[in-house]
Amino acid sequence: MRLRYKPWAKDKLNEYPQYSIQQPEQYKGRWEEVFGNDHPIHIEVGTGKGQFVTGMAKANPHINYIGIEVYESVIVSALDRIIEADLPNVKLLSVDANDLSKFFAKNDVERVYLNFSDPWPKVRHEKRRLTYQSFLKIYEDLLIDGGEIHFKTDNQGLFEYSLMSFSKYGMLLKYISLDLHQSDYEGNIMTEYEEKFSAKGQRIYRCEVKFQND
Amino acid sequence: MRLRYKPWAKDKLNEYPQYSIQQPEQYKGRWEEVFGNDHPIHIEVGTGKGQFVTGMAKANPHINYIGIEVYESVIVSALDRIIEADLPNVKLLSVDANDLSKFFAKNDVERVYLNFSDPWPKVRHEKRRLTYQSFLKIYEDLLIDGGEIHFKTDNQGLFEYSLMSFSKYGMLLKYISLDLHQSDYEGNIMTEYEEKFSAKGQRIYRCEVKFQND
Repeated sequence: MRLRYKPWAKDKLNEYPQYSIQQPEQYKGRWEEVFGNDHPIHIEVGTGKGQFVTGMAKANPHINYIGIEVYESVIVSALDRIIEADLPNVKLLSVDANDLSKFFAKNDVERVYLNFSDPWPKVRHEKRRLTYQSFLKIYEDLLIDGGEIHFKTDNQGLFEYSLMSFSKYGMLLKYISLDLHQSDYEGNIMTEYEEKFSAKGQRIYRCEVKFQND
Repeated sequence: MRLRYKPWAKDKLNEYPQYSIQQPEQYKGRWEEVFGNDHPIHIEVGTGKGQFVTGMAKANPHINYIGIEVYESVIVSALDRIIEADLPNVKLLSVDANDLSKFFAKNDVERVYLNFSDPWPKVRHEKRRLTYQSFLKIYEDLLIDGGEIHFKTDNQGLFEYSLMSFSKYGMLLKYISLDLHQSDYEGNIMTEYEEKFSAKGQRIYRCEVKFQND
């Protein structure tokens, strides 16, 4: 993703506390206060410019969405989209995925979405991939029992790696498509990146994996 | 695979007992007698015309191979190949994969190969796929602890199904390539079918999965 530094991004996020969550540590274990209801919460880790999370929130009014993105200069574009859509069931959170356990307690979240995550192709960067074992532990610790990760990417190497990482962690592969846009999967909401790369004929890979109790 | 009925196939297989195993039930639990040594045994279930199993036997003289194929009219072509190669470490066995537990005891086999298995795409034929749960049980019951299945196919649907089936059975995904011929995997021995379809630009999918003790 192209990253253009926007020095005003932080101020703008602070101007819209109804969409951009401030001091998220106060909501750990009680996120229903943020949404004013106890609908299930789905988070997208690496939400980018927010097309996916906003589209999902429109399509599924009885699910609450939180788009998480570490780069303020990027998530501020998602904020514009959410201001325009004015949806009650989607919020933004600009934090590092490594710190999620500071903000979410066990059972706070029903599902984690990972879309077109940075592939970090070099072996020495394996630990930065959002499907590395330590991240799976972070997700497990905030999900309900039997919670799921729904993951899609056009990056073959990251998808192969992730399938092995999920398996190593003992997760169940519930669904897989090796060519999402040619499959019979319905209701796919595309990310900005997905629109661009699938238009070039790039295959999209997708899977759903579930944490299992030992 | 094209199936042409060859009424003479059974007689020809019987003429070469040094290559084509007769009365295999007598070797259950003592296959080392067939090979005259205790090298590990790898089996290919659905060996077709035998190009893979013969190529593997040439490349790996310290492993014993058994090519298993239910159709005598097909495996007789593998026999021709083996007669010509005259290798001591490859044998043929014409039996149904459903009956393997009659011929192999626990620990008889170190690895199972499945190559370009019949995809049986209709849902009602799921039980015939060689990666269906009941077949995984058959393989587990003849493999060593921690034994592996190495599987390749050009059929996207069968590969997706199989990955889910392996996961459901609790197997570990050790290796996966979603485009084998473009990967850095070394020492690939192609089947007849693989040569033909990869030449048309068809992707080959490959994985290695391992049975895990509970």
